[in-house]
Amino acid sequence: MVLPCPLPVVGVVHTARRTPDTTPVQSSLNRNEVGVIEFAEDLIEGLDGLEEFDYAWLLTWLHEPSGPAGSAQPPERPELTQVPFLLRSQQREMGVFATRGPRRINPIGLSLVQLLGVDGRKIRFAGVDLIDGTPVLDIKPYVTRFDRAPGQPRCGWFDTVELSDGVTPADL
Amino acid sequence: MVLPCPLPVVGVVHTARRTPDTTPVQSSLNRNEVGVIEFAEDLIEGLDGLEEFDYAWLLTWLHEPSGPAGSAQPPERPELTQVPFLLRSQQREMGVFATRGPRRINPIGLSLVQLLGVDGRKIRFAGVDLIDGTPVLDIKPYVTRFDRAPGQPRCGWFDTVELSDGVTPADL
Repeated sequence: MVLPCPLPVVGVVHTARRTPDTTPVQSSLNRNEVGVIEFAEDLIEGLDGLEEFDYAWLLTWLHEPSGPAGSAQPPERPELTQVPFLLRSQQREMGVFATRGPRRINPIGLSLVQLLGVDGRKIRFAGVDLIDGTPVLDIKPYVTRFDRAPGQPRCGWFDTVELSDGVTPADL
Repeated sequence: MVLPCPLPVVGVVHTARRTPDTTPVQSSLNRNEVGVIEFAEDLIEGLDGLEEFDYAWLLTWLHEPSGPAGSAQPPERPELTQVPFLLRSQQREMGVFATRGPRRINPIGLSLVQLLGVDGRKIRFAGVDLIDGTPVLDIKPYVTRFDRAPGQPRCGWFDTVELSDGVTPADL
């Protein structure tokens, strides 16, 4: 099932990943894999200055969210409590707003990627957690002063799970 | 001018700020001011577990973006290069995707806020950079392992400007 995107699309992600279940769950857990954003031709001017940043946030439309284990299709409205991929072995449920999963009221993805180069309409990046063809809604530069929470903040249930590099839903 | 929100709204932000021009430009520059999200009654279950996190990302619909200096209304489609608030004194233009400004192709805001408490449908937070009435599209927990760029990344033109606490567009 593909969710139609109700917003203007500024670019499309190209990666070697074809299904959500075999795609790493977070870019920070897959820092070395490279992808490319093909930016909208008529918006290229808006990228001026982006090459001076090492990292950026990709806001994406998660058009093909993986369903819960065993289901072929995502439900019409996602469940408000879900078992996150990373808690599958424990079968613990969490409120969807305490997870980073793709089955959300608004399936907007937030990926922190490393910028490798901006060349015309192509943006090379490292840190793939998106399937090929994912629509991009926005790119925002990562600004340490704005985006780094101070100290060592509590991170809820994430503090209780092991996070393995490259882990995908199919592994869990 | 108010931009209609084309996506489901999961909550509304309440703050003491009434106009974008007199609202701090980033939550991290206004860490002590407190606001409240009034969450949708029928989605409260989705907040289970959020109180165990110290920080969260608010994805918001910037329904009332401030216009460029001197204009009463934002343009229909935002300019692809803009003078960011923080570069007004220098009158330097940047591509909109190298800025964090609100006048974007998709006016989606990304605010890192400190969670102070979740009580039923009310979420108290510190770090106000939103005007009263801003629609919330999503809340995602801040996870240090996912959201902290390693090392001291280059942050483009932000590395060249002074960032004062509490600064608003009207100050610049």
